[in-house]
Amino acid sequence: MMDKIAIVDTTFARFDMGAVAEDELKRQPGFGRKFELVRTTVPGIKDLAVACKRLIERENCSIALAFGMPGRAPLDRLSAHEASLGLMAAQLLTTTPILQVFVHETESEDPQELRNIAQHRSARHAVNAYWMLYEPERLREGAGRGIRQGSADAGPW
Amino acid sequence: MMDKIAIVDTTFARFDMGAVAEDELKRQPGFGRKFELVRTTVPGIKDLAVACKRLIERENCSIALAFGMPGRAPLDRLSAHEASLGLMAAQLLTTTPILQVFVHETESEDPQELRNIAQHRSARHAVNAYWMLYEPERLREGAGRGIRQGSADAGPW
Amino acid sequence: MMDKIAIVDTTFARFDMGAVAEDELKRQPGFGRKFELVRTTVPGIKDLAVACKRLIERENCSIALAFGMPGRAPLDRLSAHEASLGLMAAQLLTTTPILQVFVHETESEDPQELRNIAQHRSARHAVNAYWMLYEPERLREGAGRGIRQGSADAGPW
Amino acid sequence: MMDKIAIVDTTFARFDMGAVAEDELKRQPGFGRKFELVRTTVPGIKDLAVACKRLIERENCSIALAFGMPGRAPLDRLSAHEASLGLMAAQLLTTTPILQVFVHETESEDPQELRNIAQHRSARHAVNAYWMLYEPERLREGAGRGIRQGSADAGPW
Amino acid sequence: MMDKIAIVDTTFARFDMGAVAEDELKRQPGFGRKFELVRTTVPGIKDLAVACKRLIERENCSIALAFGMPGRAPLDRLSAHEASLGLMAAQLLTTTPILQVFVHETESEDPQELRNIAQHRSARHAVNAYWMLYEPERLREGAGRGIRQGSADAGPW
Repeated sequence: MMDKIAIVDTTFARFDMGAVAEDELKRQPGFGRKFELVRTTVPGIKDLAVACKRLIERENCSIALAFGMPGRAPLDRLSAHEASLGLMAAQLLTTTPILQVFVHETESEDPQELRNIAQHRSARHAVNAYWMLYEPERLREGAGRGIRQGSADAGPW
Repeated sequence: MMDKIAIVDTTFARFDMGAVAEDELKRQPGFGRKFELVRTTVPGIKDLAVACKRLIERENCSIALAFGMPGRAPLDRLSAHEASLGLMAAQLLTTTPILQVFVHETESEDPQELRNIAQHRSARHAVNAYWMLYEPERLREGAGRGIRQGSADAGPW
Repeated sequence: MMDKIAIVDTTFARFDMGAVAEDELKRQPGFGRKFELVRTTVPGIKDLAVACKRLIERENCSIALAFGMPGRAPLDRLSAHEASLGLMAAQLLTTTPILQVFVHETESEDPQELRNIAQHRSARHAVNAYWMLYEPERLREGAGRGIRQGSADAGPW
Repeated sequence: MMDKIAIVDTTFARFDMGAVAEDELKRQPGFGRKFELVRTTVPGIKDLAVACKRLIERENCSIALAFGMPGRAPLDRLSAHEASLGLMAAQLLTTTPILQVFVHETESEDPQELRNIAQHRSARHAVNAYWMLYEPERLREGAGRGIRQGSADAGPW
Repeated sequence: MMDKIAIVDTTFARFDMGAVAEDELKRQPGFGRKFELVRTTVPGIKDLAVACKRLIERENCSIALAFGMPGRAPLDRLSAHEASLGLMAAQLLTTTPILQVFVHETESEDPQELRNIAQHRSARHAVNAYWMLYEPERLREGAGRGIRQGSADAGPW
């Protein structure tokens, strides 16, 4: 039986980060042989955690990617915090990693730059999920290297 | 046996969002045949989470809608945050989705506009609950489309 | 065997809200026949949650009322938030409602007004607890009616 | 078998509150006959919660006192909040009271006054722990009396 | 069978704190005889908690060290808070200590000073982990002594 990687995103988001992650994961070695993808879409970021938990527990997913795009309002910032705590709890209750991939609309004023951030962050975290499952030594090599997703790496001090 | 959708709201709220959701769900295909509604009212938003958990566990509801209207005071904002974390935990402990449908009095100065927001948001989330149960592909099609409840869709970047 | 309603309050509080609730509940139909009261006092608001959980689990209480009075200092506000999250968790872990009845010293500068708020809020929430157990339709009738405890009802929009 | 009261403190703290609590508890009736003390020291306040849980579960302690002294930096305030939420969760997961006894360095500029606060608060809460176990009616008598630890009682309104 | 100490760090960090901890622990008596090390690297600080939980539960680690370096942005501060709450929950769910070793980029403007803080804090907390397992009396002796990691000890008041 193949491993499963869960991709969960929202209709609230203004860019299809889930599609980027799908494409990236389909390019990794072993797609369709070692692992397959399961994708679900929920209304908003506060719906992500339970959706991930369901895919982990009921579809037996080995890892999940949770995509969200909090808006500019102060209430959105609070929602992102609540969503994030939910994703943390979902990880601990399932003992399964869920990579939280959020792009905040406050990160830029420019839609094109936001798209670039979303594209890059989604692709990099899709690879991180793959590495966590199959090549953890790749992450181990990056320990303390100031690696970023959605911007240039900060590098080590 | 029919599925059950839980509707939980408060006496604190200043508009009957639960009634809007009831009406909307009764218009969906399969009402009274595939699914029925269970409704409970509690005093305030911090009472919503355990009420939803009880309906999910004891009435075997497949999904819940939790309606609340935090007031203008800073303490109300904090209560909303606490209520929201409770709803998050209730979802994870039951592995069942609860759509949080809150209208904040700070969203507008105008009662009529607040009523409009409450009406629209309640109706749209009632449909979301229906889709999550019976037509998840409708949400999948909306992934990253900037869809909103209570205001015009933001659309994709 | 009679139902039990738990009343938990603090020595930190500056008004005996628990006594108000006791009086109010003793006036409800069925007191001493359908239901009885169990009361415990703890030092401060962060001790309320576990005390409620113990009464629910060990004394088999059907519902609890938790009374607290956060002071004026910023640290008090944070304590109230932590206490509130604890009460939320206690509800979810026991699947039993706990009505949080807090009066914040910042709600008024005037001790007499604070006493009035505390009196009214305690009595109204005692009745809410009674209704939740025995007359839930009373709450259902108040859905979206802008009902308050400790001040005049806001009414519907 | 004797009851056990857990005393947990930190090396981060700048005053030995645990020692004050030990002394106070040793003066209570029944020490060494009805109850004994178990003491553990951890590095910082965020280590208190799991240490209390271990003593409650593995040493069978009936109640715990958790002593901490958050510093003046904003990050210290956040750590105290996180530590406090941990202590709340530890209480609920063990259904056992843990009295949180924190002195914040921001409570005074004067080291002597901070020592006085720490001394008084530790002693008073040690007695509270004793009362919770053996003389709960003492706390019941203080309901709503504005009792404080570390400063003069505020008294009732 | 040897005890295991878990070391978990991130690729986001800009200094290899995990390596410092490894070196320090290898210098402690009993390394390779009484205890061995298990190390994992994850992308960011919000991935630490579940990684620690997995090592504790699946590798049977007796204690964990979690290293992270939150950046300067306000969102980083919030992430650190969420990560910290996750580590708190992971400790309580496993009843196992996890020492949280975070260096905040806001602690200094100077990379060299940040490296010094990171070096010192990692080494001191590695020793704390060792003491917690094998020499708890060392911590007991330091109760209330104002001991710090990453800066000079504050000392007692």
